[in-house]
Amino acid sequence: MEKIKKTTGAFSLHPRIRIHSGKEIAFGPGKADLLEHIVETGSIGAAASRMGMSYMRAWSLVQAMNKCFKQPVVKAVRGGNRRGGAELTDIGRHVLDSYRRMERNSLKIAQPDWRAMQNLLRHESV
Amino acid sequence: MEKIKKTTGAFSLHPRIRIHSGKEIAFGPGKADLLEHIVETGSIGAAASRMGMSYMRAWSLVQAMNKCFKQPVVKAVRGGNRRGGAELTDIGRHVLDSYRRMERNSLKIAQPDWRAMQNLLRHESV
Repeated sequence: MEKIKKTTGAFSLHPRIRIHSGKEIAFGPGKADLLEHIVETGSIGAAASRMGMSYMRAWSLVQAMNKCFKQPVVKAVRGGNRRGGAELTDIGRHVLDSYRRMERNSLKIAQPDWRAMQNLLRHESV
Repeated sequence: MEKIKKTTGAFSLHPRIRIHSGKEIAFGPGKADLLEHIVETGSIGAAASRMGMSYMRAWSLVQAMNKCFKQPVVKAVRGGNRRGGAELTDIGRHVLDSYRRMERNSLKIAQPDWRAMQNLLRHESV
């Protein structure tokens, strides 16, 4: 899994982007990671295990995402039994790609300020 | 206080940037807000009240920041008694400015992807 951060000495920069819907988070780092694990494992259950969360938790996050977007972002495959395989829809892939690009761009554009700030940070063990 | 987000219908985009030092957060949204409230109120205590945190919590966050950077980011004013006034040092202002600029730039560069993603989100009440 891709890590969006920039490490220097003991310090690292972590841009994180969230889409709020009122007080709730419609999409953010956790849901993006879940989608990515579903891509890699082909299963909601396996994705949940990797993230140390219950199947039900992962399933409810997927349901929440599917409701947030005009079309589902995850669909069942191999007959669609409840604990069967899962994969991203075209929209799901598009959402994940856009989100990761926003993170990468955020990290990229922060570089001049981040370099300047590093000079102000106390690098004890470097 | 400046809010770094972009609202559209019910959805809004919130870029948040954190500087990690190992597992700890050396600087992030909460500390930036605290510095901003200190600028506006001229006091750690008043800044703490505004944020609904105890004086001791705010004071320990300031101490943590002062240790993270090569020079303190907040200094006492008016004689320096413990609950007296406080203001940002030159470095403190620089850190806060850089941080806010990183947030603004992050929001700006995310716009093309954010616009595309809005078309995929279900705007129920719009």
